[in-house]
Amino acid sequence: MLQTETAPMRISILGATGSIGTSTIDLVRRAPKRYAVQAISANSNASGLAQIARELRAGFAAVADPKAYRALKAELSGSGIEAAAGPEAVSEAGARDADWVMAAISGASGLEPTLAAVKRGRKVALANKECLVCAGTLFMRTAAEHGATILPADSEHNAIAQAMGAGSREDVRKITVTASGGPFRTFTKEQLKAVTREQALKHPNYAMGAKITVDSSTMMNKGLELIEAHHLFDAPPEMLDAVVHPQQAIHGMVEFRDGSLVAAMATPDMRLPIAHCLAWPDRITDAAEPLDLARIGTLTFETPDTDRFPCLKLARQAMEAGKGAPTVLNAANEIAVAAFLAGGLSYLGIPLLVAAALDAAAQRGLMHEPSSVSDALEIDRAARSLAAELLPEIAAKSS
Amino acid sequence: MLQTETAPMRISILGATGSIGTSTIDLVRRAPKRYAVQAISANSNASGLAQIARELRAGFAAVADPKAYRALKAELSGSGIEAAAGPEAVSEAGARDADWVMAAISGASGLEPTLAAVKRGRKVALANKECLVCAGTLFMRTAAEHGATILPADSEHNAIAQAMGAGSREDVRKITVTASGGPFRTFTKEQLKAVTREQALKHPNYAMGAKITVDSSTMMNKGLELIEAHHLFDAPPEMLDAVVHPQQAIHGMVEFRDGSLVAAMATPDMRLPIAHCLAWPDRITDAAEPLDLARIGTLTFETPDTDRFPCLKLARQAMEAGKGAPTVLNAANEIAVAAFLAGGLSYLGIPLLVAAALDAAAQRGLMHEPSSVSDALEIDRAARSLAAELLPEIAAKSS
Repeated sequence: MLQTETAPMRISILGATGSIGTSTIDLVRRAPKRYAVQAISANSNASGLAQIARELRAGFAAVADPKAYRALKAELSGSGIEAAAGPEAVSEAGARDADWVMAAISGASGLEPTLAAVKRGRKVALANKECLVCAGTLFMRTAAEHGATILPADSEHNAIAQAMGAGSREDVRKITVTASGGPFRTFTKEQLKAVTREQALKHPNYAMGAKITVDSSTMMNKGLELIEAHHLFDAPPEMLDAVVHPQQAIHGMVEFRDGSLVAAMATPDMRLPIAHCLAWPDRITDAAEPLDLARIGTLTFETPDTDRFPCLKLARQAMEAGKGAPTVLNAANEIAVAAFLAGGLSYLGIPLLVAAALDAAAQRGLMHEPSSVSDALEIDRAARSLAAELLPEIAAKSS
Repeated sequence: MLQTETAPMRISILGATGSIGTSTIDLVRRAPKRYAVQAISANSNASGLAQIARELRAGFAAVADPKAYRALKAELSGSGIEAAAGPEAVSEAGARDADWVMAAISGASGLEPTLAAVKRGRKVALANKECLVCAGTLFMRTAAEHGATILPADSEHNAIAQAMGAGSREDVRKITVTASGGPFRTFTKEQLKAVTREQALKHPNYAMGAKITVDSSTMMNKGLELIEAHHLFDAPPEMLDAVVHPQQAIHGMVEFRDGSLVAAMATPDMRLPIAHCLAWPDRITDAAEPLDLARIGTLTFETPDTDRFPCLKLARQAMEAGKGAPTVLNAANEIAVAAFLAGGLSYLGIPLLVAAALDAAAQRGLMHEPSSVSDALEIDRAARSLAAELLPEIAAKSS
């Protein structure tokens, strides 16, 4: 029998040189004929981006840093691949016509290019946190208006999306993300006071950057994930919960109104949720090793202690307040974690600075619903200034 | 706004006085206006059946035992409810026109009435094991021919059906039922030799009868469940597996070909799977208490030890052999467990008798695919005789 040739899927990868971009490319490499790479982007790594562009025969390569343009252009010379630089070029990469876009630019600079992809009305695998945390309402509304399908590319939300398939959306009563609990899960408040940068940068799962490793230890990352889930699944705050599950076998759970609980599990390999997005509604065989529960042996669960890990409570409060509050939370947390990593703030100073910034922002009227990406970016910038302004006082108080 | 009145769902309950029937009725009682009870049946409990018939205003009540007819007729006198007795009457209860039938007659006598319900081409909630174990191919083919929807009413298969919803059937790579492991999970082979009837009748979950409690302790019940899953989900034997999970929070799991594992969990309350069948594709709010993983704390998993629990291996062999082998397995197991409960066979004699019966049945040509219910019942009867015949020798050997 003749094998039917299907047209390759046209894909773009925003943030192609980062860890999620690299994992995406790993999957593309397994079946390169299935994909036609339209556009790829990176922040400043021109030679890494050029190498990927050549290997995948991308149509367009954009680097955010204008200073990297010359290097990119040189590396791609003679390849026939278009090269461009600057934030607008990255947005153009997002806007290039594709059936599927991986939105894996980290930080607020991912907002514009991801929204450009969403406006194409195709499938967008979302790995950028800020789209939902800083502009969730706007982002999801834009996706709905343009008929885009948002596929969650991080393990927790992808797991929730899979578990949701076991029933109807209207029957979902509770959505739970699991948390590793981080390296200080069993620390007393006294021990937490003395946590150093070195201790905080140890984390058992995934290979993560310093910022997210600290967020994982403070449980702020779970708080941000709750906010993301709030928008992704159009779920009210009271429907959302986090549970500590150190073995990280279960990534997300959905409780239906009859009392059924459906959990999605996987080995901690980010290629699995990415593959789920890439192939959806199909699946890619052996995207990750299967999970062997008998070998793991024991799974444990604990209620998060928001007294020892107040960041989770602050995130919940910001989610409940809505509008600009999650942006302030996220911005203040970035300033706080950067200060902690630089030795300018104690570990327990992180939630103190975030709380102070939320209070001050409310007083200064910084908490409105962003009406546009530039508005969201403006709130983000203002919140960062505010947190930086409050930092010396909080650092002194909490040292 | 006016509330739209929907026509009540016409339901029948076969085996209405048993534990599954009673749980079904519990759920019907919560919203009696939603259901119009067409027919109910019981084995011999005329007064129990009459009471249910009056309460639920059933149209037809059938008792299997002809001797119970007079009592049933008397109890229903003046109610306008039709009464009948005998196996044909129970089959008629199954055949009465209904949108949904609970098939909860236990044992081989459930075959005919359940098949009568299936031939109506409606939804059949299946709690009878023999339909699948003794006539699985015939049963599922009949369901397909008549367009009936088979809804699994026991917790394991219901959990698997829910988990399957998280993906496509063709992407399912593995189906796992969980097993409590029973009271002898940690026993050595030496300790198993000395197991008494009294020890075997202790089981931590559900309130079950003596037979199923012993099956749970030998893990034969999991073996039979694998055979049921084989037919229910049209899954080849190598796709099916059992894992020991003493806390019984997870009831069933499905692994998809990408490596995702989806588990369906619930408190051990049989009303949950029954409610899932009753409302499907909708759900009944608060059918059971939700599961609180943080309160449970720890879930553990072990590979079943088929050396200590050979019944599971025998069941797998019978599933692989197919045709009449599962019927022989089931029949021989019933004889063996009855003998054990009566003090005529040691605990480790149970798998020995089952193995001997499977060998002898193969030699005697008892292993053909049943072509009809009466054929299946004939294999069942012949296998019982064979096992009874082999019993003295095995009892002597294994004492």
